[in-house]
Amino acid sequence: MEMPIPNAAIVSRKPALVAKLRAAIGAQGVIDAPEEVKAYECDALAAYRCPPLVAVLPSSTQEVAQVLRICHEMGVPVVPRGAGTSLAGGSLPTADSVILGVARMRDVLEVDYPNRTIKVQTGITNLAVTGEVEGDGFFYAPDPSSQLACAIAGNIAMNSGGAHCLKYGVTTNNLLGVTMVLPDGEIVEIGGAHMDASGLDLLGVICGSEGQLGLVTEATLRILPKPEGARPVLIGFDSNEVAGTCVSDIIKSGLIPVAIEFMDRPCIRATEDFAKAGYPDCEALLIIEVEGSEAEIDDQLARIVKIAKQHNPVEIRESTSAEESARIWLGRKSAFGAMGQLGDYMCLDGTIPVGELPYVLKRIAALASEYGLRVGNVFHAGDGNMHPLILYNANKEGDLEKCEALGADILRLCVDVGGCLTGEHGVGIEKRDLMTHQYTLDDLEAQMNVKDVFDPAWILNPAKVFPLATSASRRGQL
Amino acid sequence: MEMPIPNAAIVSRKPALVAKLRAAIGAQGVIDAPEEVKAYECDALAAYRCPPLVAVLPSSTQEVAQVLRICHEMGVPVVPRGAGTSLAGGSLPTADSVILGVARMRDVLEVDYPNRTIKVQTGITNLAVTGEVEGDGFFYAPDPSSQLACAIAGNIAMNSGGAHCLKYGVTTNNLLGVTMVLPDGEIVEIGGAHMDASGLDLLGVICGSEGQLGLVTEATLRILPKPEGARPVLIGFDSNEVAGTCVSDIIKSGLIPVAIEFMDRPCIRATEDFAKAGYPDCEALLIIEVEGSEAEIDDQLARIVKIAKQHNPVEIRESTSAEESARIWLGRKSAFGAMGQLGDYMCLDGTIPVGELPYVLKRIAALASEYGLRVGNVFHAGDGNMHPLILYNANKEGDLEKCEALGADILRLCVDVGGCLTGEHGVGIEKRDLMTHQYTLDDLEAQMNVKDVFDPAWILNPAKVFPLATSASRRGQL
Repeated sequence: MEMPIPNAAIVSRKPALVAKLRAAIGAQGVIDAPEEVKAYECDALAAYRCPPLVAVLPSSTQEVAQVLRICHEMGVPVVPRGAGTSLAGGSLPTADSVILGVARMRDVLEVDYPNRTIKVQTGITNLAVTGEVEGDGFFYAPDPSSQLACAIAGNIAMNSGGAHCLKYGVTTNNLLGVTMVLPDGEIVEIGGAHMDASGLDLLGVICGSEGQLGLVTEATLRILPKPEGARPVLIGFDSNEVAGTCVSDIIKSGLIPVAIEFMDRPCIRATEDFAKAGYPDCEALLIIEVEGSEAEIDDQLARIVKIAKQHNPVEIRESTSAEESARIWLGRKSAFGAMGQLGDYMCLDGTIPVGELPYVLKRIAALASEYGLRVGNVFHAGDGNMHPLILYNANKEGDLEKCEALGADILRLCVDVGGCLTGEHGVGIEKRDLMTHQYTLDDLEAQMNVKDVFDPAWILNPAKVFPLATSASRRGQL
Repeated sequence: MEMPIPNAAIVSRKPALVAKLRAAIGAQGVIDAPEEVKAYECDALAAYRCPPLVAVLPSSTQEVAQVLRICHEMGVPVVPRGAGTSLAGGSLPTADSVILGVARMRDVLEVDYPNRTIKVQTGITNLAVTGEVEGDGFFYAPDPSSQLACAIAGNIAMNSGGAHCLKYGVTTNNLLGVTMVLPDGEIVEIGGAHMDASGLDLLGVICGSEGQLGLVTEATLRILPKPEGARPVLIGFDSNEVAGTCVSDIIKSGLIPVAIEFMDRPCIRATEDFAKAGYPDCEALLIIEVEGSEAEIDDQLARIVKIAKQHNPVEIRESTSAEESARIWLGRKSAFGAMGQLGDYMCLDGTIPVGELPYVLKRIAALASEYGLRVGNVFHAGDGNMHPLILYNANKEGDLEKCEALGADILRLCVDVGGCLTGEHGVGIEKRDLMTHQYTLDDLEAQMNVKDVFDPAWILNPAKVFPLATSASRRGQL
């Protein structure tokens, strides 16, 4: 992946920069020793690495503002970092940048049950938000697979979803307001604990903007009452296409399960070897979860089973107890880890209209065979958010490049059927150069014009999202 | 309400403009006779009126693009108009503008049940969208009171909600993609039939942008399965504050009714005189509707009734049949018409955090008494979207001004408790000068910078949304 040449003038100013940062937020929040900044050289897309110039870990919005003001004055690029779980290289540093992590900002600022909101510092993990309110019967809906580790800051930056987002929506549907620091250090409040906003919906444009517009330091999130109960059914099929058609028929019928998860044979086998969840030996399986009262759960599962039976399933396993439910989910939740046992993998993140699922699965299989690589599919099928996992060997010459080329072909396929390059991982570094497949240069120009408004010096999260050639003249302003 | 002085140079170019428009889209789509353009001199905020220079009614996206290209070349402002039901003056013309109505663009372009979407031209009415799919068991969720008349174009421009949006969200939660014509005539596609989008979420910023950024001519909307059943309960209280506290307790409990509607005594009495729905004689009543299977409806209503009983209700009337349900809703649906019988009224549209409802109702009563005007409250209490109706006498000198001043005080109150100037009607002309109460000049500058990106010449929907003094230097570019 091509990166801009580090600005030597900025690098030479490191001692002065470090001194100013220490004076502003104290020595313990500023990391500059080369062996220590190495901890920030990559995120979960570990194929790309570059240590930053300096790492800073402020503990408040005010400190974030001071850091940004200093970097702005000195012309130093800033790379925001949540928990570093990005699979798209969203917080990959450049050698001339300050990485600004929110890991020390994990406070819960306010829980407001009458208005069903919680206000947090954005370094808090996704699961800790639910942890804060579950004793009172509430939860925070978006649930990325990485929810134990990932930070709300990253969830907002990438507009993350998760298995249960089919019913509850993704981050943008559960975010009410933010405190954000602009690149020049100004602190702004956008949205709040009320519905909608007057004027232009800047909250919408900020959610999913991948750290290109500002640093979100505090967030007001919607919390929801925990459902009375929930139960999954596991359904096995003898072909991917038939399983895809079944998903499409369930969605078409009007049912809204909380989750429809899809696993194909490579994933099922890897998972069985690893987690021994007792999954059937079949080509594809669906885990469909519904929730509500017992009567409602029974009714919805019966309707789903009726639809599934029209597609000759090889197995239908309806959960009747909490233990069975846990066993059904066990495999799915271990799938990424299990695939990791098989070798190195790249996890893609395209979205497609749900109706295109059977066709897209067929084309992915054909492409994988053309490239001679194995692809496992495990993903949120209900909302069309696919996560194909491409297996490769990092130690084999040329294998990463082949994997990247196949990944690009699969994402282009998503766009070609009316979908999109990313559902919840973001464009980051990974899909930057594919943006021209989805957007015309005029489209990208419009998006870059909006970035100009918030970050006129293009100082935030450099070299991401927009193809380098497209953003060259703007980045020249640094 | 102050308006900019019409540009005489533009007015003098009317004959050339009309000739060009006729050549482009045919004579039948171009209205220029003064007695005919008068039909477009106002929308539902009839207190403000100004006939446009010309009215055009194109029949396709291509024709809209041609009209905008001509106006752009000639420097003529363009005021977009849906069905003209705006209560905030969102489609009030200026004397030197072309009003561009989408009334002739009502085609359904595609219904896609597998992906649960419908694609329409935006001149179609809100209710006609549901009409198109209800035979197959689906509906379009946002349901403004004006849904029989209002166009999807206006719903998108104002991000409209409605009684049933507590459960299903407002327009922005049900809009998947748009075809939009930029002020210079360029046609762009934003979003699509898939979840989320890569890059900046421009669809979010367009929804609710009040015709400031472009003309949305086609829209892909989410359609939902009709619930099995729905039933309301009507609950009367002897004080507004207690009714407000009951709403707050229901929300806090975690229940999500489809609708929680609130009416106070002035509305109840007006409605009884007008529609004779048999409402109880009380200070405040709630109509709370739940939906689902019969068992689920019974369960939810029982829980709501249990909460309500803790607040000493004067009456609880649970519907047990379709006839009773219709009677309960009859009064609420006639409330605006009934208030109209009492005199002229201005309908406000502020939002507040739900927990502030009791306090805000008390303050509104105190303010109304200070001004010596009557205020009726009938609104979506569940999501904190208030619609106070101020009664006044248009024929009485100074009464409109007094009404406007009271309205402004009430909206400032909404902002002061953490809410917002508008929930679904938009800022338009009506709340333009209040924007500085909610936003700093820097906030407004950021919003105007975003408008610059889409409409650099500030040609679209002039003199709306932003205070005239704030936008003066930009509008000077015209």
